[in-house]
Amino acid sequence: MIIFNKIDEIKLYLRKQQNAGQTIGFVPTMGYLHEGHQSLIRKAAEENDITVVSIFVNPTQFGPSEDLAKYPRDLKRDEIKAKEAGAHIIFHPDDKEMYPEGYKTYIEVEELSDVLCGASRKGHFKGVATVVAKLFNIVHPDKAYFGQKDAQQALVIKQMVKDLNMDTEIVVCPIIREEDGLAKSSRNVYLSEDERKRSLVLSKSLRRAQELIEQGITDAKIIRSEIVGMIEKENVIIDYVEIVSADTLKQVDKIEGKILIALAVKVGNTRLIDNIILER
Amino acid sequence: MIIFNKIDEIKLYLRKQQNAGQTIGFVPTMGYLHEGHQSLIRKAAEENDITVVSIFVNPTQFGPSEDLAKYPRDLKRDEIKAKEAGAHIIFHPDDKEMYPEGYKTYIEVEELSDVLCGASRKGHFKGVATVVAKLFNIVHPDKAYFGQKDAQQALVIKQMVKDLNMDTEIVVCPIIREEDGLAKSSRNVYLSEDERKRSLVLSKSLRRAQELIEQGITDAKIIRSEIVGMIEKENVIIDYVEIVSADTLKQVDKIEGKILIALAVKVGNTRLIDNIILER
Repeated sequence: MIIFNKIDEIKLYLRKQQNAGQTIGFVPTMGYLHEGHQSLIRKAAEENDITVVSIFVNPTQFGPSEDLAKYPRDLKRDEIKAKEAGAHIIFHPDDKEMYPEGYKTYIEVEELSDVLCGASRKGHFKGVATVVAKLFNIVHPDKAYFGQKDAQQALVIKQMVKDLNMDTEIVVCPIIREEDGLAKSSRNVYLSEDERKRSLVLSKSLRRAQELIEQGITDAKIIRSEIVGMIEKENVIIDYVEIVSADTLKQVDKIEGKILIALAVKVGNTRLIDNIILER
Repeated sequence: MIIFNKIDEIKLYLRKQQNAGQTIGFVPTMGYLHEGHQSLIRKAAEENDITVVSIFVNPTQFGPSEDLAKYPRDLKRDEIKAKEAGAHIIFHPDDKEMYPEGYKTYIEVEELSDVLCGASRKGHFKGVATVVAKLFNIVHPDKAYFGQKDAQQALVIKQMVKDLNMDTEIVVCPIIREEDGLAKSSRNVYLSEDERKRSLVLSKSLRRAQELIEQGITDAKIIRSEIVGMIEKENVIIDYVEIVSADTLKQVDKIEGKILIALAVKVGNTRLIDNIILER
């Protein structure tokens, strides 16, 4: 496995491979890799000649009061996990390499960026769209892999790629969960034992919502209050619980077509998200 | 010469050429080509295997009260002028092709976009940056050619390409003028005979500024009031007359290093710009 820190060097290397006809699969990450990331890397390695994983804790997608400084980092561990899953190349630039002095350009995907996580994390998706566009321009991937856990992120990136006429195909892969149902996340390491237990209500409430919908309940208000009730019982603070169209992220009153139930909470100091896509 | 209207079709064609090792020079225009554009096309044809000219009057760079609807268009004439200058391919999409329903993504080059023309034309450079990024993603040019007449545009594009790690080299070519000094512009056709004469004050005042600087005057205020005085005498309405650093577009007090003297005026209903770059 080769590790690149410099944009010019990885560009030069990958362009040579591409000119020789090699296809490139790309998994952009913020590191501290878990089985969710590994499932993306495995899929990329299956579908492409060369698999590139980027590890970059992107400062422009963190708000001033968020956990940028303490976001977990462990490059040695990441190297092992990436290699294990089939990665050939790690791209691990530092902040100065990605945002040199005088940096000025940002990408905004309007509407999709202002709701759900974008409402409470102002500028978050602007940072995400910008860094992903930069990474795509560096790597020129044929396919890039994103987790369904960040449902809104996947939608924002898909929209950007379509709007800006980029050549990369976006592949969205299922949420990987712990055995007890908690969605895998680098932030799970922040949780105390008690918080870890209370966090189970996220996936439980989504499964309960699914049950209710399968039983024929179509009123989004009823579904939403069931979820809210379950979460509040666990003393978990709700950021949002939203039932929206899975394509437009606009709120729906009736469960119909392809819908996304998405939630974000704070368990202690840790922000967790989870979601489910249902079709009816 | 081949004319493409569809993004997918020109992409497919150009990718084949690129895979076969052909280099691509690109001249993005809003059509109504004049000798300024032709000088860019000629340069592109000299330096690349294939020269692509886009003709697209980009709605997102016009303000609501600007001249989008009446902007001059003449594709047949443009085809002849482009071919004459050495173009191989014209890309001429319609609005729906470039901004289909549900379009949401915009690129902002901060700071550089808010001054000079960006101060009076809100959102103009957001539209410019966005459409140029789209065109670059469609064409994948090795080199793209812009006129120095739109000095701020050239700077905004250069910054975007650098920030977003795009592979295209930006080549900025000198202003082409009429024999009497008026900078060539598609908008010159709007001018009445009398307005055409009064417009000469733009280039004259810039030449006068250059003289004064060559005589050793370094106080930007003095230079600026000389220009303003000359323009006002011609009954021409000033939007701005600015003396700024040619790299940062920040105002300077003293003529030192590489400076840009840029001006925008209204002659009757027609907005005209001109500029000069000086080094001291």
